[in-house]
Amino acid sequence: MTYCVGILVRDGLVMIADTRTNAGLDNIATFRKLNVFEKPGDRVLTLATAGNLAISQSVVSLVTEGIENPETGETDTIWNQPSMFRSAQLVGRAIREVYRLDGPMLEKKNLTFDVSMLLGGQIKGGRLRLFMVYAAGNFIEATADTPYLQIGEHKYGKPILDRAVKYDYDLHDALKLGLISMDSTMRSNLGVGMPIDFAVVRRDGLGAEASHRIEAGEPYFHDLRERWSAALRKAHQDIPRPPYGPRES
Amino acid sequence: MTYCVGILVRDGLVMIADTRTNAGLDNIATFRKLNVFEKPGDRVLTLATAGNLAISQSVVSLVTEGIENPETGETDTIWNQPSMFRSAQLVGRAIREVYRLDGPMLEKKNLTFDVSMLLGGQIKGGRLRLFMVYAAGNFIEATADTPYLQIGEHKYGKPILDRAVKYDYDLHDALKLGLISMDSTMRSNLGVGMPIDFAVVRRDGLGAEASHRIEAGEPYFHDLRERWSAALRKAHQDIPRPPYGPRES
Repeated sequence: MTYCVGILVRDGLVMIADTRTNAGLDNIATFRKLNVFEKPGDRVLTLATAGNLAISQSVVSLVTEGIENPETGETDTIWNQPSMFRSAQLVGRAIREVYRLDGPMLEKKNLTFDVSMLLGGQIKGGRLRLFMVYAAGNFIEATADTPYLQIGEHKYGKPILDRAVKYDYDLHDALKLGLISMDSTMRSNLGVGMPIDFAVVRRDGLGAEASHRIEAGEPYFHDLRERWSAALRKAHQDIPRPPYGPRES
Repeated sequence: MTYCVGILVRDGLVMIADTRTNAGLDNIATFRKLNVFEKPGDRVLTLATAGNLAISQSVVSLVTEGIENPETGETDTIWNQPSMFRSAQLVGRAIREVYRLDGPMLEKKNLTFDVSMLLGGQIKGGRLRLFMVYAAGNFIEATADTPYLQIGEHKYGKPILDRAVKYDYDLHDALKLGLISMDSTMRSNLGVGMPIDFAVVRRDGLGAEASHRIEAGEPYFHDLRERWSAALRKAHQDIPRPPYGPRES
């Protein structure tokens, strides 16, 4: 499994991804799932991936090496797209290309073509945007109404986002919420694990304001986990006991 | 969808179930999924159901009306089993009987035989026990190590249980935690909805200490939701901002 979340607030974008992959419970490994493509002053794109690792790595290789555009004859790469929308289309085309190459054999083996991606970032002259690209190569975009998107094992970490994430939230507070969401997921699902990669992109910064790997035992994250646990404990202890006595119904 | 949770603590048992059923998003209805079988002083059993409503209703009818026992020639019902273990076996047999009757046609229609149940309670002379019965009719039991079991849409409401539920927790605090878990699930999944049924069974009480339906807008539950939201907000606000500045990696 995997858990990745992207949060788009007024001030910028946060992308967070775990690094655990597993082929069965007895075969787990660490792979980077958060990719940052940065040409300071020109563009910064972050691409987080979930699903079949062979598919997602091929997609990342394709968008990096480039895909020939049959209409223009040019080679399209993540580095030369004129807009975020075009970049999301490129990721979608790369997914379809991998499907064309590997899909039939996967289907013969009864394996689903399972992949999804979050693409967020900004290109000079355009807006900061966040997309979720599906296995069919189509995509949706986060908006001020729903400023976060998740891929992978999304359910455990969704309640805190549903309650707390707002578009006008501070950028680094959004990172904090994303880390809490990741913590909740890791506690309940063994398929999501440390270390955690994240990137913070400030709107119009055209570069990554922070890009970091949180290793197990890192003091801030350890403290966040402890504080969150303690606060949850206190929160439910502070709620009065239910008043439902014997035989009410 | 459905969400049901059973929590077994030293002092007793809590069973909670929502009441929403849906056949597609445009066809939702309210059905009771928590059944209480009570003969005060002799036995109290609670049965919560998830999955295909036709299957689960048939199972409840079968265990109430009885199934003939081919070995003894007697009619076994939920009212005459000598132990909780035997009662769980009876629920399993009822599930298999419904599978025998309806399974082949469901398979022809490409519908999965989808059902799961929580059975908790106590019979005079025996222990208070909590079981989860699967669609195959087999079952597992909650223990002091893992004192809660869930069926249906379990992921959203699991983090709070994973963190907070302990076997030595007060019985009515366990109910409170279960209601918080239900609230988290209802906020994130439209397929789980009010009203909420619950039952509280005190160990060796041989009767339901409380059995109640919480309707939308009921003051205690409304207050619990508000307090929990406010506490979560405060909890994440109180955690310091991440210290990850520009370009650390």
